[in-house]
Amino acid sequence: MQEARATAEPLVVDVREVPRWQREVDVLVVGLGCAGACAAIEAAAAGAETLALERASGGGGTSALSGGVLYLGGGTDVQKQAGFDDSPEEMAKYLLAACGPRPDADKIQVYSEESVEHFRWISARGVEFKPTFYARYSGEPPTDDGLVYSGSEKAWPFDEIARPAPRGHVGRVPGAAGGYLMQKLLAAVPASGARVQGDTRVTALVRHADGAIAGVLARSAGERVAIRARRGVVLTTGGFIQDRRMLDLHAPLLRRCSVRVGAEGDDGSGIRLGMAAGAATLNLGAGSVSLPIHPPKSTSRGVLVNRSGQRFLNEDVYMGRLGEHVLFHQHGIAWLLFDDASFERPDLPRELVATGETWAEVGAELGLPEGALEATMQLYNQHARRGEDPLFHKRREYLAPLETPPFGALDCRVETTLFAAFTLGGLHTNAWSEVLTPTGEPLPGLYAAGRSTSGLAAPGYSSGLSLGDGSFFGRRAGRRAASARTSR
Amino acid sequence: MQEARATAEPLVVDVREVPRWQREVDVLVVGLGCAGACAAIEAAAAGAETLALERASGGGGTSALSGGVLYLGGGTDVQKQAGFDDSPEEMAKYLLAACGPRPDADKIQVYSEESVEHFRWISARGVEFKPTFYARYSGEPPTDDGLVYSGSEKAWPFDEIARPAPRGHVGRVPGAAGGYLMQKLLAAVPASGARVQGDTRVTALVRHADGAIAGVLARSAGERVAIRARRGVVLTTGGFIQDRRMLDLHAPLLRRCSVRVGAEGDDGSGIRLGMAAGAATLNLGAGSVSLPIHPPKSTSRGVLVNRSGQRFLNEDVYMGRLGEHVLFHQHGIAWLLFDDASFERPDLPRELVATGETWAEVGAELGLPEGALEATMQLYNQHARRGEDPLFHKRREYLAPLETPPFGALDCRVETTLFAAFTLGGLHTNAWSEVLTPTGEPLPGLYAAGRSTSGLAAPGYSSGLSLGDGSFFGRRAGRRAASARTSR
Repeated sequence: MQEARATAEPLVVDVREVPRWQREVDVLVVGLGCAGACAAIEAAAAGAETLALERASGGGGTSALSGGVLYLGGGTDVQKQAGFDDSPEEMAKYLLAACGPRPDADKIQVYSEESVEHFRWISARGVEFKPTFYARYSGEPPTDDGLVYSGSEKAWPFDEIARPAPRGHVGRVPGAAGGYLMQKLLAAVPASGARVQGDTRVTALVRHADGAIAGVLARSAGERVAIRARRGVVLTTGGFIQDRRMLDLHAPLLRRCSVRVGAEGDDGSGIRLGMAAGAATLNLGAGSVSLPIHPPKSTSRGVLVNRSGQRFLNEDVYMGRLGEHVLFHQHGIAWLLFDDASFERPDLPRELVATGETWAEVGAELGLPEGALEATMQLYNQHARRGEDPLFHKRREYLAPLETPPFGALDCRVETTLFAAFTLGGLHTNAWSEVLTPTGEPLPGLYAAGRSTSGLAAPGYSSGLSLGDGSFFGRRAGRRAASARTSR
Repeated sequence: MQEARATAEPLVVDVREVPRWQREVDVLVVGLGCAGACAAIEAAAAGAETLALERASGGGGTSALSGGVLYLGGGTDVQKQAGFDDSPEEMAKYLLAACGPRPDADKIQVYSEESVEHFRWISARGVEFKPTFYARYSGEPPTDDGLVYSGSEKAWPFDEIARPAPRGHVGRVPGAAGGYLMQKLLAAVPASGARVQGDTRVTALVRHADGAIAGVLARSAGERVAIRARRGVVLTTGGFIQDRRMLDLHAPLLRRCSVRVGAEGDDGSGIRLGMAAGAATLNLGAGSVSLPIHPPKSTSRGVLVNRSGQRFLNEDVYMGRLGEHVLFHQHGIAWLLFDDASFERPDLPRELVATGETWAEVGAELGLPEGALEATMQLYNQHARRGEDPLFHKRREYLAPLETPPFGALDCRVETTLFAAFTLGGLHTNAWSEVLTPTGEPLPGLYAAGRSTSGLAAPGYSSGLSLGDGSFFGRRAGRRAASARTSR
């Protein structure tokens, strides 16, 4: 009953219904993952009295559980020392091409231009990056190397659009770079002067008659408290992969993914608060869907086919692009085919669901239409013998005819294998992290960053764009809120 | 400057900022297309003092410009007299399968169960339907026949899921059934006792402190008027295919379609009003995209291929499904292939962009990868000779090998040929047409229907589902609002 009543509480409350404020601050940050920590640090650094609320006992959230990859570039110290040439222009070109049919050009521009500065800021918080490149292609190297390819930069068509450079920056704690990053950022929060209060759940935004946000109502240890935010409220509460209802409504195909990437708090609470206050949302149907057929990158020599036995993209693209295509465009069904010469198991094991001395036998075992796999492989081999892939433009280094029996198929179907998903849509914000109304104007007093917003990456994901844009636009949210006029 | 200031006006205004109401009614309907007319008629019939506002001089909107198809079934008089057996259960089964990955089961159930009653209600407004079937497959027969297949009922997989029946009901004025329908419905509005006021644009919703909607602000002949709605405001303002900004943000791929189906008023105004008042939205990225390769239905004998020279679906599905697949899943690129024996021009002309004595010649002319088209056609012909299509399950009657030269390709690319698009997403409503908050509860005082809501059909469209669900859920909005408690 407690829970049932709690969910029926209003998400927005008129300021005149708040008899008194139990607490007053300048900037109130809701949620203490990567975006929230950066927002709090920057707001406090700008001189604002800052309080960060976290519903769990301590901060960290999904960021602390993540692989710790930050998508940064434009010529960071790590890129330079590892021998890679990059520029803000090339970084922006890649992101404009990779981030879906309507990339946010304003955000991409500022994110690319200020990426080197942002890298230094993160480093200055004590996060160390070893300036060495890990070539075996992964979002999260098993080593302490600090730089990886974390997107489709070297795959067609992106390699023709922008000069490839690795931009995945990973802290030097193998296997726990996300926790390491958050450990440093969380330590920097009190150091900045911002206060932190855990075990506190924001239940409503408080608004003035004109719609401007005045503060929040929260629950802490069973008590309801009203907290005024003189300059602004920053929502950094994460996405909604853990909320069955929102997922069902807005991103139903993500329900099919076996692994939902997100802490318990990723239930969309901040998105709902913003919507209820009149904010616009964006890309609620978008999700990052990883289909990890590599590393190792050499598994790109395999051929991925759909339920009609057809190829549908270049197998050497990033696993986020693979997953997106299989789930959203190929009914969630795919198999990765090898011959004896090319066979290599992906690091994440996949079941060998069909084998045969001919492609016809493999196709029959997979239940594919008669002749379909033979036609696909005959055409593929015909081109691959010449080192070409005119259908999907896989890179030459992964092209070889698959003609040495036995042949086999690894399972890549969404229902039976590992697909890792999280949501990418959320509140619509501008490049200053101001939450926008349906007409595109800032909703006074409300800011947001991280996965509670539609970030850079919806719907074309590259690893590192969550921590990357969360930390970057979290900082901007904190600075912008700190500089806002004090509300009545 | 006038316009610039007008757009900066707030979309929501606190009731305490409204010094006095210029007018008071029980139910206020905003927008007078099909959904608005039905809402007004039913609200007035239920005894509510009802006013319908329309920004144009007269009602009609996109509904009056449409083909006039209503998706109705379950055993209507027209279906029976034309010799078709249908039931609410079969109708619901089809809609559950055809309306995307998360069909609204509540709405589909009530829509199917009450469809016969709704048909009679429409008929009782004076709309006549000739009880004859038009077999040449079209949303809008050139004849005065009253019944057509207007979806993919007879195509795989739907033919295996539900017993096919034609459900497209068309009024008996060939070529102008939408105008005819609206003429009758608009005449029924004053007859019901509801008042109509044209040239009046609603600029804001007025809300109480608790978020409930109290009325609207509107502009009429340069004057600003505040109109109280004691029982409720019904938004029936249409979709947003004419709003460049919303299209760009929410449904960017629809921008590529050459024909935007909608009156000037389809600029999303009501959706923005609802969002600003804290309503949830649904499926904003969805659109109906028609690629009319038929009628005649016999053009289904052709083979549709993508930019890699591959088939991707059964060519005999409804043109809305064809367009959706080409635009959203095939990069907007397709060609329809024929041999000499099968060639038939679609009613809507398409350019013959390649011809050849062999499929290799056609493929080369289209710029397809070497060997791709030959592989596709060889496999297709091999199966078609046996009357089979194991890849995509086209019906046997459209299957014949395409092997008689010369061969040709008709252009079906989005940028160079006719694709007709309108938006399907909008405000989230329940089966009573109550607008919902982000937690799924009704937003007191606000109702919506038609394309300003996410209707039955997002994202899997069949013709007739706009007028069908607009009129049906418009009626429910009117009844529900009329029965609401009077607000303070």
